[in-house]
Amino acid sequence: MQTPLEENPMSSSDPSELDDEIDYRRVHRSQHPQGSVVRFGSTPFGDGGFTVIAGPCAVESADQIDETARIVADHGGRVLRGGAFKPRTSPYSFQGLGLEGVQMMRRAADNHGLPLVTEVMAPTAVEEMADLVDAFQIGARNMQNFDLLKAIGASGVPAMLKRGFGTTLREWLLAAEYILAEGNDQVILCERGIRTFDEATRFTLDLAGALWAQRETHLPVIIDPSHATGKPGLIPSLVQAAVAAGLDGAMVEVHPEPESARSDGDQALDPEQFAELMQRLERVAGAVGRPLV
Amino acid sequence: MQTPLEENPMSSSDPSELDDEIDYRRVHRSQHPQGSVVRFGSTPFGDGGFTVIAGPCAVESADQIDETARIVADHGGRVLRGGAFKPRTSPYSFQGLGLEGVQMMRRAADNHGLPLVTEVMAPTAVEEMADLVDAFQIGARNMQNFDLLKAIGASGVPAMLKRGFGTTLREWLLAAEYILAEGNDQVILCERGIRTFDEATRFTLDLAGALWAQRETHLPVIIDPSHATGKPGLIPSLVQAAVAAGLDGAMVEVHPEPESARSDGDQALDPEQFAELMQRLERVAGAVGRPLV
Amino acid sequence: MQTPLEENPMSSSDPSELDDEIDYRRVHRSQHPQGSVVRFGSTPFGDGGFTVIAGPCAVESADQIDETARIVADHGGRVLRGGAFKPRTSPYSFQGLGLEGVQMMRRAADNHGLPLVTEVMAPTAVEEMADLVDAFQIGARNMQNFDLLKAIGASGVPAMLKRGFGTTLREWLLAAEYILAEGNDQVILCERGIRTFDEATRFTLDLAGALWAQRETHLPVIIDPSHATGKPGLIPSLVQAAVAAGLDGAMVEVHPEPESARSDGDQALDPEQFAELMQRLERVAGAVGRPLV
Amino acid sequence: MQTPLEENPMSSSDPSELDDEIDYRRVHRSQHPQGSVVRFGSTPFGDGGFTVIAGPCAVESADQIDETARIVADHGGRVLRGGAFKPRTSPYSFQGLGLEGVQMMRRAADNHGLPLVTEVMAPTAVEEMADLVDAFQIGARNMQNFDLLKAIGASGVPAMLKRGFGTTLREWLLAAEYILAEGNDQVILCERGIRTFDEATRFTLDLAGALWAQRETHLPVIIDPSHATGKPGLIPSLVQAAVAAGLDGAMVEVHPEPESARSDGDQALDPEQFAELMQRLERVAGAVGRPLV
Repeated sequence: MQTPLEENPMSSSDPSELDDEIDYRRVHRSQHPQGSVVRFGSTPFGDGGFTVIAGPCAVESADQIDETARIVADHGGRVLRGGAFKPRTSPYSFQGLGLEGVQMMRRAADNHGLPLVTEVMAPTAVEEMADLVDAFQIGARNMQNFDLLKAIGASGVPAMLKRGFGTTLREWLLAAEYILAEGNDQVILCERGIRTFDEATRFTLDLAGALWAQRETHLPVIIDPSHATGKPGLIPSLVQAAVAAGLDGAMVEVHPEPESARSDGDQALDPEQFAELMQRLERVAGAVGRPLV
Repeated sequence: MQTPLEENPMSSSDPSELDDEIDYRRVHRSQHPQGSVVRFGSTPFGDGGFTVIAGPCAVESADQIDETARIVADHGGRVLRGGAFKPRTSPYSFQGLGLEGVQMMRRAADNHGLPLVTEVMAPTAVEEMADLVDAFQIGARNMQNFDLLKAIGASGVPAMLKRGFGTTLREWLLAAEYILAEGNDQVILCERGIRTFDEATRFTLDLAGALWAQRETHLPVIIDPSHATGKPGLIPSLVQAAVAAGLDGAMVEVHPEPESARSDGDQALDPEQFAELMQRLERVAGAVGRPLV
Repeated sequence: MQTPLEENPMSSSDPSELDDEIDYRRVHRSQHPQGSVVRFGSTPFGDGGFTVIAGPCAVESADQIDETARIVADHGGRVLRGGAFKPRTSPYSFQGLGLEGVQMMRRAADNHGLPLVTEVMAPTAVEEMADLVDAFQIGARNMQNFDLLKAIGASGVPAMLKRGFGTTLREWLLAAEYILAEGNDQVILCERGIRTFDEATRFTLDLAGALWAQRETHLPVIIDPSHATGKPGLIPSLVQAAVAAGLDGAMVEVHPEPESARSDGDQALDPEQFAELMQRLERVAGAVGRPLV
Repeated sequence: MQTPLEENPMSSSDPSELDDEIDYRRVHRSQHPQGSVVRFGSTPFGDGGFTVIAGPCAVESADQIDETARIVADHGGRVLRGGAFKPRTSPYSFQGLGLEGVQMMRRAADNHGLPLVTEVMAPTAVEEMADLVDAFQIGARNMQNFDLLKAIGASGVPAMLKRGFGTTLREWLLAAEYILAEGNDQVILCERGIRTFDEATRFTLDLAGALWAQRETHLPVIIDPSHATGKPGLIPSLVQAAVAAGLDGAMVEVHPEPESARSDGDQALDPEQFAELMQRLERVAGAVGRPLV
């Protein structure tokens, strides 16, 4: 016979939502009912248009990133992305070119008149990278690296906060709250897919969650369908979905030669696919009155 | 000291994808590379347009369903939905009006020139409902009720197969395969959200998964953002996303007076919200060259 | 600029737990604070001991099931399991021997003095199988096949209700409530793993959830580590865990020759492994004062 | 008509398991088939016994941690735990006493003859804490904070690596690989529950996953049922399960006065519950031949 270990029957209620967990006072939409405009260099997010960030998963060489920047700029992308410090699941995978890669990216971005966003992984690296970047990316694995969030908050450099693949929407907003609490309100949110039981796409893109975040906060919200799905064939459709749904932008991976990429090449668009995506996008964006920024 | 229970070290490979699990030979796109057109009455799905199914969660009375049918038809909905046999988590919840509800719905649909789709829960009910409906809905909880799938397959009545909230995309295609294997190829797929760790929206709408299914099969694919999110405020954006992404339609809940609904009223659109959704939708549909059916 | 679609800001609270969802009045432990004893034939569950159900995934032949029944009985298993009606993801997989398989199993069980439990998939089959079985298994895919639950409830035949792999603990209790609401209180619960993002084991065995269910209800609760993990090397450890944790039993797959099984053979124990498991189990069961039934 | 975006049909195969993802060459059991023994101070893990770590969620005062250390030592706990640097979802929650808290904890541990383990959150804090601790805890949110893993690897201080709540078993092993790759092989693994769709327990304890990790690697593996479930009533049963299953230890939260705790008090055992747990545990440990360390 089972003897209950507790004198009182186990409570049916589950206090999963503590008060602290919903105290995102600075990012809440009530602070700016019209929504905030955030700028990476001179490129705006949240001004009513739709902003495209594009570039390779990893910076591989000066030529590769310069060529990519040219492609991005030529077809209407407005921010260059690329990883120089790569968070890799395995210690034996390519970890990126580091600071040298950031410098290559800076030159490529300047050559083609684009601002750049790149990932920073350690609080100590924030200062040394601050002058080289227009915006910091906080990667999914670091969404709750609170020391990093505080350092970026203190730096005043604009930030793109990716949602952790195992974290809730409310935790994402609270991570943004860490940055704003340090006095830095130049934050955009990027949904990049969450972990679910289905493996047909790499992660499950939570489009409704991105829309929820956009309504719950005053921060611009974009999606990253490249990492979310790992399937280039789905990316144009998902970017069109994002603009029609009213989101503020998208980040896509582009590589001059995807088949030779050193990291995640199988999810990158080639130049022709990117050009086609931007053309389709422009049509939809016009129809919904959200011009490409 | 841990003594291994197996003589050979545990294999690193996981045979999660058995051959049987990918044998959806009849639904595979290679069977109909141009895609299939499926008809509920005279309303097509998959002909290049975008088809809207609308109606209440539950049929509550002859007046309620007739009034809803009028609203649906007036604003461009092309199929009436409504539940008469309701799968309810609790035995003590309202279980629907049953066959009488189906008959009310039939009259309402006819009055307003719409075909109807409604859920059937038991194999034995397929025959008695076959003459009253234009299409059967197979609900999420019954997606792997194989006897039901076979009975619907044998009936020849068109079917809308909702994805189970805990089932993979491949299992969904294999469930459709059960229907086609009985000789019935009039099947559309409906993504309605899957279970994940996030509770801000009721389920997580897997838009990328719906697109994946649309490419992998020749069947039309639609979404149900009402059940997926439980948040009327997100529904219009998600339907616009669906048309822009290239899906074949959407099903939304509409109720003349959501606040007085007997089931899931909090997720239904009221008539004014539905009218506004259809207007927005028409604009986007035109822009992407996928007219409302 | 994002225009909110709702006049009122989206509520932070999520009514995910409706009143109906926690109304499991008949299965709640308060109904029988000491817990219920359920019997399959003369074998008890919930009397303070630990009961082992064993057998093959599928009945394949009269010899195979008879030989398995002998192995089960010889080593202390107290109920024979085996599938004759198999719910299979693919329509092209082996679907079981049907009623003939149940009859083979009946003879094998009788030959070796064991009661039997086997899956029933359709409400219409309940009646024709009722005289042949000691208990019905309700499979994970049918946990919310409400017509089936009602039919088993009305039959009065004892039942083992497996948890759906995508369903919550509360939904599981409410599914049991459907059976009890028809007047049948001979129900045991079987946790068999849920779907999560991790694929190293086939499903994720929710041991804590099984313990939660045992405290929240008066029904006996067992686990099925064979389906949960798909890894024979983990099964003995998990069964020992179950007895030490205070659960009421376990169901394991045993096959005379796993490598030649027609279904899920890779997860079955061979006779020697089963014998060893039962020996280990006896030691732990004695230590915690829960003798093998 | 849907026009495929790709010339070739979408591949059915998903390369989710890249070669890099299974290259945990240093932690693989083949390196030490008999398993490794890891020591926090003089307390061993993995020597065939079962080791209990206990203490409060957060260090609150010198008295509170000293009193807790006394309770832990008196009843057979062999390592003191407690948080001084607390990773908190909200920036407005209590963040811990910091270095001062570690010093309080050091004195309490010394007073009662226990080694201590405490969380370190930033790479820069590793050096300043190294002399004060017997082992570092790497928290679930930091499991893939690769700079932190490298810093701990380089420090040579033993480490307890908690599994991230959204990370796979293989990612967990690869995170451990980062530490060993820096030359530090004093690592134990701690399973603390993963995120799933069920909310009845706070997380879902993956006991089978912990067993899988124990077989796949040579590292000791323990569980943390306190954080996994948030339900003190389930903790003793789960610890008994762990010892019977053959795991190497458990970490439980104990607080002199749970109801007045500043963090997660609702999941802590009070002194009496802890004493009872240790008594039950001793009985089971003896039965399975795994004495309490």
